[in-house]
Amino acid sequence: MKKMIIVPAIALIAATALASTASSDGHADKAMKAAIDARKAQMKLIAYNMGILGSMAKGEAPFDSAVATSAATNLSAVAKLDRATLWVEGTIQGEVPDTRAKSEIWSDATGFEKSATELENAADALIEAAGTDVAAIQAAMGAAGQSCKSCHESYRGPKN
Amino acid sequence: MKKMIIVPAIALIAATALASTASSDGHADKAMKAAIDARKAQMKLIAYNMGILGSMAKGEAPFDSAVATSAATNLSAVAKLDRATLWVEGTIQGEVPDTRAKSEIWSDATGFEKSATELENAADALIEAAGTDVAAIQAAMGAAGQSCKSCHESYRGPKN
Repeated sequence: MKKMIIVPAIALIAATALASTASSDGHADKAMKAAIDARKAQMKLIAYNMGILGSMAKGEAPFDSAVATSAATNLSAVAKLDRATLWVEGTIQGEVPDTRAKSEIWSDATGFEKSATELENAADALIEAAGTDVAAIQAAMGAAGQSCKSCHESYRGPKN
Repeated sequence: MKKMIIVPAIALIAATALASTASSDGHADKAMKAAIDARKAQMKLIAYNMGILGSMAKGEAPFDSAVATSAATNLSAVAKLDRATLWVEGTIQGEVPDTRAKSEIWSDATGFEKSATELENAADALIEAAGTDVAAIQAAMGAAGQSCKSCHESYRGPKN
């Protein structure tokens, strides 16, 4: 398990533009919004690949080892994106708009990291399963779905 | 350079739901829309990480090796996502809504793969540069920016 470094929004923005507090705040807001949008894009890619694998697991789509391998490989890569520049300090539900990220992501960074690592491991198991058969996909999808659920329960707030 | 397998939308959708052509078309449309949304998410993540590195290259943000490494590592991972389940057959500008993907992506698959590989290589050079200094970032950003530009010129159509 890697340790997440915590990046303040200020590290991502124009140092030369920080002539006034107002300007500073504006740039920090922009950097925080960009980070929130980026992790929504990450979630979209996770959901997309889980959807492809889920369709096969449920028998709604035919098992295709090449397609399943593509989806599981991408799921793993996206789950493993370095979190430092995505979970930027201060991008918390209630403090900034358009996010459901709970403050526990930062105050309980070890727990969040553990939860995120569960998805990484489940995705790797899905790559293995994709080279096997639909029964293996079905078995591996359980852990993947559970990792989504438990992370959302602990670290995602209510709908805005 | 890996060879892109071409996945028809039908491989991603509910086989059991294909009772009628109308139903089949509806499901294929949904699978194509999901693929288009997924690659837009991929582009957003590419742009986000390029933005962080670009701000440092331009001196708008202070050089921070850890932040640059995080961004470059993520850029590389996202650039290397397997293209088979993203560039799904038929998801072409003019044939389906909300995409600017030109038909050349599929008719000139070798050229598209070459172009995509240029970004992968540029991103790997940025990881190396991120461990060095801002001058290295500036040098590596040139190739990365050029790979975006040339791929968009050849394979992205006009604004919808």
